[in-house]
Amino acid sequence: MGQARLITLTTDFGTADGYVGAMKGVILGIVPNARLVDISHEIAPQNVRQAAYVLYSTYPFFPPHTVHLVVVDPGVGSARRPIALRTPAGTFVGPDNGVFSYVRACEPDGLLVELAEPRYRLPRVSHTFHGRDIFAPAAAHLAAGVPITALGPLVRDPVTFPRPRLEVAPDNVTGEVLHADRFGNVVTSIGHLMWRGDGLVLDPAFREAGDRGREVAGGEHVCFKAGEATVLVAGQEIAGVRRTYAEIEPGETLALVGSAGHLEIAVREGNAARRLGLCPGDAVMLRLR
Amino acid sequence: MGQARLITLTTDFGTADGYVGAMKGVILGIVPNARLVDISHEIAPQNVRQAAYVLYSTYPFFPPHTVHLVVVDPGVGSARRPIALRTPAGTFVGPDNGVFSYVRACEPDGLLVELAEPRYRLPRVSHTFHGRDIFAPAAAHLAAGVPITALGPLVRDPVTFPRPRLEVAPDNVTGEVLHADRFGNVVTSIGHLMWRGDGLVLDPAFREAGDRGREVAGGEHVCFKAGEATVLVAGQEIAGVRRTYAEIEPGETLALVGSAGHLEIAVREGNAARRLGLCPGDAVMLRLR
Amino acid sequence: MGQARLITLTTDFGTADGYVGAMKGVILGIVPNARLVDISHEIAPQNVRQAAYVLYSTYPFFPPHTVHLVVVDPGVGSARRPIALRTPAGTFVGPDNGVFSYVRACEPDGLLVELAEPRYRLPRVSHTFHGRDIFAPAAAHLAAGVPITALGPLVRDPVTFPRPRLEVAPDNVTGEVLHADRFGNVVTSIGHLMWRGDGLVLDPAFREAGDRGREVAGGEHVCFKAGEATVLVAGQEIAGVRRTYAEIEPGETLALVGSAGHLEIAVREGNAARRLGLCPGDAVMLRLR
Repeated sequence: MGQARLITLTTDFGTADGYVGAMKGVILGIVPNARLVDISHEIAPQNVRQAAYVLYSTYPFFPPHTVHLVVVDPGVGSARRPIALRTPAGTFVGPDNGVFSYVRACEPDGLLVELAEPRYRLPRVSHTFHGRDIFAPAAAHLAAGVPITALGPLVRDPVTFPRPRLEVAPDNVTGEVLHADRFGNVVTSIGHLMWRGDGLVLDPAFREAGDRGREVAGGEHVCFKAGEATVLVAGQEIAGVRRTYAEIEPGETLALVGSAGHLEIAVREGNAARRLGLCPGDAVMLRLR
Repeated sequence: MGQARLITLTTDFGTADGYVGAMKGVILGIVPNARLVDISHEIAPQNVRQAAYVLYSTYPFFPPHTVHLVVVDPGVGSARRPIALRTPAGTFVGPDNGVFSYVRACEPDGLLVELAEPRYRLPRVSHTFHGRDIFAPAAAHLAAGVPITALGPLVRDPVTFPRPRLEVAPDNVTGEVLHADRFGNVVTSIGHLMWRGDGLVLDPAFREAGDRGREVAGGEHVCFKAGEATVLVAGQEIAGVRRTYAEIEPGETLALVGSAGHLEIAVREGNAARRLGLCPGDAVMLRLR
Repeated sequence: MGQARLITLTTDFGTADGYVGAMKGVILGIVPNARLVDISHEIAPQNVRQAAYVLYSTYPFFPPHTVHLVVVDPGVGSARRPIALRTPAGTFVGPDNGVFSYVRACEPDGLLVELAEPRYRLPRVSHTFHGRDIFAPAAAHLAAGVPITALGPLVRDPVTFPRPRLEVAPDNVTGEVLHADRFGNVVTSIGHLMWRGDGLVLDPAFREAGDRGREVAGGEHVCFKAGEATVLVAGQEIAGVRRTYAEIEPGETLALVGSAGHLEIAVREGNAARRLGLCPGDAVMLRLR
């Protein structure tokens, strides 16, 4: 268990007010030698989808014994269930509001439970801060080795987002905007893309596995020449899919394969989300030739 | 001592400039196995009261061997004393400017010293960055087990804020605004409040003790029905004290018992501090029926 | 090696998006017991000079076995080399874009290599996120004790900024603005300055060495009375060099010796960079009498 005490934190709490600090105090009171890693505390308030994406793009790079604690929880105090999910690639703790949808799409072999057992909560549970009173203690006990099934009954019907759009036709692929990062780079659902020389392979069934190698799980492949493809988004046409920003001039718009293996839209030294007015859910088409 | 090396940091330095990093380097040079937890580096510049509140709402959730380092220090370079405070609930290091007032109100059995001993400072002390040169080394040495009395002489007259207003009458309780968090939720001095079914108990003598249970130290109790109470603030009347945001519609104003056990004013999915124009010190009345 | 696993991180990634989190996951996958310290993730996007300054003002306060990972990398995906630098005061990992210029000026005895060895990268290297795929693994392996020469061939011609202006004349010293911090305090290249009673000693050859004492390496000294000196900047004349903000009234402009030992321009409870319109590179003159 020497290294089995790594816990990441993702919240919309910001870092001004001590809410995250209180959660860390609770964890370290239970597991004094926990290693805590902040993923983000700047998720837009109550933006469950943004949290889901940030988690999806991050967890594959952590060791599989990591516990990922996510508190973006508009339903705190209501009937939404607190849950934990154990998968071969990591353990996840947070509210049952869809925030683990993208992880679950990649990690189908998960064990999901409701955090019902009072022994693994703080003695007094507030109505407004379950991050501190329910989720942080659960993450700590899981990191300390408590079996996940000790925390509560199995959940068979978790809240799940619809899968992001990804329609493959002979000559094109249609997807949607998933996320814009703080630079205004826009990540789409068109992935996973891998370079093969000057060509790209699109494999919708690809599962990113960080530094633990990659696994391609069946599914159809689409192969095309990056230079001949066109991206249509927000009424604009962008020629070619690039490898890097360095291929274009500052201020130009480009399409490229981003660090998560998805098609991204960016402006070199600029903000593509703002320039093109793109929001999550907006359609994107990749025309293959 | 294996786990006696936990240090939290609260400053108004922001995280852009490396000031916090330099403090951490100093600590880790003295105690290589220190565990460092950021509480907040986004305290508004020189806002000692905000730091005092954030510390008050956070320290009860940390193990009692924790050292809490606070550097919000408008008087750096002047004659204000650097101090350390040891209590049964934690050790506190920072400037003598009132920042520990709320902690001291909760932890009357503290030992307070001036950080006068040059051995526990950096060899050269700048005039502008005592966080790095005096406070960080003191926190590190205290975490490493140096007795607090070795750091300097006892202090008997620390700078202390006036106790926040809290006047209990037969039919009402008058308090003041203590703090607004980054969401605009407004915390008042009216606490500590605990639910008993549909009723609330107000116990001004309550001492919050995080997950280590609660202690009620004498003092008068006020019991009232949450649904029959009214909150008067900024010329507005808010009906009832709620458990959660989920009880009202988005955009509505509510009064509730916040996660620190105090009466709070909030707007669901909105900013109560801005809507009601509330600032620390503004009067709040809880009319019991 | 028990304590030889300290890694600091400095980037322009911000903390909203999980990019820093992914880097930390990669590091902890390689070195499970690494201690990670954030210096800054709020470097202005692609501002290599700001990162160079923040690193310069911070590294002397860390133990010499620390690995400092810096990812401010406008040239990611281009031909710029990834490098590592080992010096007696610390090990540095980042892009070859000048970001280590100020460190190298202080630490001439460094060993510099290109991060060419694929064994010390992630198996798949993206074109847009070398922080995660090249720099983080290199930092982790170096912290774990891999000899720096195993990572790639020596580099003899690193990209280097011109040394900041510092011209010493009998009656004055001319320098330039290096950096403005988030409070608007302006750090100049006029250093290193040390107090001797009411006088100041300027020693351009001074090497700051944090809590490990100070070393003066040859070089000319300039001695002058702080109260008789004048600072000329942006067409303004500031009388005297002060020790602390407390010596002037709120709103006044002052010159002082900052925490990095350099001449700084500040406004008490105000923003000097904004008031005087100062930018990096602007000339500053210290008239000695």
